[in-house]
Amino acid sequence: MNSPLLLTDFLDRARELFPGKEIAQYTDGALVHRYTYRDYHDRVLRLAGALRELGVRPGDRVATLAWNHYRHLELYFAVPLAGAVLHTVNLRLEPGEIGYILDHADDRLIFADTSLLPSVEPVRRHRPVIDEAGYEALIASAEPLTERPSRHEDDLAALCYTSGTTGPPKGVAYSHRSLYLHTFAACLADGHAISERDTVLHVVPMFHANAWGIPFAAAMTGANQVLPGPHPVPAGIARIIEAERVTYTGMVPTVAVDLVREAAKADLSSLRALVLGGSPPGEDLVRDIEERLGVPAFQGWGMTEISPMGTFSRPLPSAEGDPAARRRYIRKQGRLLPGLRWRLADDEGRDVPHDGVARGELLIKGPWVATRYYRDEHPGCFHDGWLHTGDIATIDPDGYLEIVDRAKDLIKSGGEWISSVALEHALMANPAVAEAAVIAVPHERWQERPLALVVLDKPVDTAELLAGLDVPRWWLPDDVVVVDQLPRTSVGKIDKRALRERAYERRPA
Amino acid sequence: MNSPLLLTDFLDRARELFPGKEIAQYTDGALVHRYTYRDYHDRVLRLAGALRELGVRPGDRVATLAWNHYRHLELYFAVPLAGAVLHTVNLRLEPGEIGYILDHADDRLIFADTSLLPSVEPVRRHRPVIDEAGYEALIASAEPLTERPSRHEDDLAALCYTSGTTGPPKGVAYSHRSLYLHTFAACLADGHAISERDTVLHVVPMFHANAWGIPFAAAMTGANQVLPGPHPVPAGIARIIEAERVTYTGMVPTVAVDLVREAAKADLSSLRALVLGGSPPGEDLVRDIEERLGVPAFQGWGMTEISPMGTFSRPLPSAEGDPAARRRYIRKQGRLLPGLRWRLADDEGRDVPHDGVARGELLIKGPWVATRYYRDEHPGCFHDGWLHTGDIATIDPDGYLEIVDRAKDLIKSGGEWISSVALEHALMANPAVAEAAVIAVPHERWQERPLALVVLDKPVDTAELLAGLDVPRWWLPDDVVVVDQLPRTSVGKIDKRALRERAYERRPA
Repeated sequence: MNSPLLLTDFLDRARELFPGKEIAQYTDGALVHRYTYRDYHDRVLRLAGALRELGVRPGDRVATLAWNHYRHLELYFAVPLAGAVLHTVNLRLEPGEIGYILDHADDRLIFADTSLLPSVEPVRRHRPVIDEAGYEALIASAEPLTERPSRHEDDLAALCYTSGTTGPPKGVAYSHRSLYLHTFAACLADGHAISERDTVLHVVPMFHANAWGIPFAAAMTGANQVLPGPHPVPAGIARIIEAERVTYTGMVPTVAVDLVREAAKADLSSLRALVLGGSPPGEDLVRDIEERLGVPAFQGWGMTEISPMGTFSRPLPSAEGDPAARRRYIRKQGRLLPGLRWRLADDEGRDVPHDGVARGELLIKGPWVATRYYRDEHPGCFHDGWLHTGDIATIDPDGYLEIVDRAKDLIKSGGEWISSVALEHALMANPAVAEAAVIAVPHERWQERPLALVVLDKPVDTAELLAGLDVPRWWLPDDVVVVDQLPRTSVGKIDKRALRERAYERRPA
Repeated sequence: MNSPLLLTDFLDRARELFPGKEIAQYTDGALVHRYTYRDYHDRVLRLAGALRELGVRPGDRVATLAWNHYRHLELYFAVPLAGAVLHTVNLRLEPGEIGYILDHADDRLIFADTSLLPSVEPVRRHRPVIDEAGYEALIASAEPLTERPSRHEDDLAALCYTSGTTGPPKGVAYSHRSLYLHTFAACLADGHAISERDTVLHVVPMFHANAWGIPFAAAMTGANQVLPGPHPVPAGIARIIEAERVTYTGMVPTVAVDLVREAAKADLSSLRALVLGGSPPGEDLVRDIEERLGVPAFQGWGMTEISPMGTFSRPLPSAEGDPAARRRYIRKQGRLLPGLRWRLADDEGRDVPHDGVARGELLIKGPWVATRYYRDEHPGCFHDGWLHTGDIATIDPDGYLEIVDRAKDLIKSGGEWISSVALEHALMANPAVAEAAVIAVPHERWQERPLALVVLDKPVDTAELLAGLDVPRWWLPDDVVVVDQLPRTSVGKIDKRALRERAYERRPA
């Protein structure tokens, strides 16, 4: 009973059991491509063959810089099938940051959307970049892969960089085994419950933690898949849900807020559920989804380091039928997925009780939780076999996690992390700035945005200060507040908690 | 990301996330015991502690001879928790056969229901037997297990003997990893879909392939569990379903036929589904379940060697809403579970197409499929990494398996195997019998029963002949037909297929 757990088995399964199920792609809300798993499988095998012909060897990294479309979905299986590692790069990063990541991963080649070529222009000198025309040329000329490279379940299949901690981006590498188990978890009746009856829409970017692993789950179960193409907007998402009778999709609350506004213009009744992740949803949003869309809402919580699914929030069975009680559970991050272990730890590493009141840092481990960063000797947030999430949380006696604060200084904006420490360093690079502190403040649309507080050595125009910061544009603080001094903790560090408490509108309990 | 996959994690999960969910036990249709997972966990830890105090060491086998009750359910986790191997023994076997199995497994000790003590009387001399009073004395005096033995995911957790092939019973050993993965499979939305919202009733004997693995799935998901106690009868099962608002249960068609007859006397509307396994259900039964009980029927197919789940039959999504089309799918054995691989092979081992017409022997492998028998050097039905199931089957283009004949001479009676070869040997042990052939004939209640055909050397009374057979009583052929000669194949072997074709009422296609 020791067959290896290989992610690519799910591709074969889709071809064998669900050859006629469909993958549809839209662009700007209009259908542009539709084909079956049979055709998908054929193209994936050709692409894998092409990769081998290009000299890609087992273990090599192959990068993608791409929106959610069918070619990207082909790469999801073709790269691991060729024995290589699918490295999905965040297309929202600045070219410099993309260059750093490609260098760090030492990608063998890069598949980039034609529209995204400017982002990889700086690296074209030393890394081959294949655009969409080149991609089609490869598929047209390649022989399908026949001999599969010998693989072990611990071999890497995918790689994703996160800006979730201070310092430069960190790579999280996923093995075949970890993604295989994560895919099973995504199809559990108490999880996403992806099944053959589903038509799933991939709103979550495919460069973001493998689009929560849903593409793999869809292939395993034979669910139809729908891709929204570049720059998806809520009106287009609503049209696609109506046109394809989508049953299941997930998104960050920011996008869901806008989708709810489209409710009157499109028929979204095909949805069996809508799952929110990336940031905790507000109570109004959960109510709107349930009342205006008539769709049950769920919440998933995870991290790039957890492949990404860590918890899933469904209401307690006893709360079904009571909308207010139901919402109280959905607004929590939910129960730990089977297979994972967790702890709440206080500052001395001691266990904190799961009484719904006591707070501790959430520690997590399990078969799809990273234990180190890729090509990084530093322990980072990994200690004693546990991932230290940096989230301060409570766990109630029924096992519902609620994240209540953040141990690390991170800001989560529209589902992506902004490092406050990196922002502070950038601010202090200006000679006029003596001290800087960046904190998260709640934001209706983006959940959180950075707010900068600075102590100045000499007067400076804050607009100029911001314009000169060497960070991604979407990191730029919405406001800079000049203060006389910053509060300190007893050991002399800037007291971020005190700053947050002043600035935060406290969330209702 | 290399945390071991340990079955016992699910016990900890039940205690941590679902402490208040319940386990109820009935006897003769009346509630006799009810407690929570919190109390269950406490007793399991005490029992595991007691096992260590009794000298049970990691890897030791601990046998059970028990009906479906809460003590048996405690042993399901306590034995693996102590690092030992849970060996569930079929209580329907004759004492001689039980003795053989206990010797072969070399069980360290035996937990037996007090009512079943006569079956283990012959082995008491050399193996400790603990009855129910002894069990409670152990729990009362033991310290809970605190230090868990170090375990690898490939360590054995359970063991079950099958009479599925010719010759003596064969042991199938399950590792922590295989049962862990099988448990995930049982909770997939496209499988049993066990969830926290379920209350499951264990009708399948707990000595039979771990009751299809549902007890582990219930612990993982926090489903309530209900146990019917000794000698469950259909009227009692119906009462229990009504009293406990059972949502999910599985059984062999024989039992389901009787349950349908109870439909008018009890309210079975709490069932979300009823799954049939062990033998293919007749069309009337599927219709009765759906129309008279108002419950969707599903079919699962498996073998002890597959932990046991191999396939699960839900209708194609397109067949939902069309009862006749739905039934056509449910009567097939269904789709292969994710994680497993299969082939149809002809007599020369070549692939047979999956066109719904071509027949071949079903071969299967995967992370919860055995690759050898326990303590058995013979290859048995394992060749080239595949389990040769002995079932002749078709697979249609949608991937639905249909078993159409049997390569091996086995008779499936009430969900249990009878070896025709062993019966033939027993018949020929009578000096009056020159030749004997045993085949399966369809039976309304037991699905199949053995029919013996004999060529005699001298006259013999067939009732006396049957009375003298050294086989379990339930193996005894319903009829013995005396013939002048038996048909032969081209190579001189008895042509069982020709005999079956004469005797079988062919099933409707």
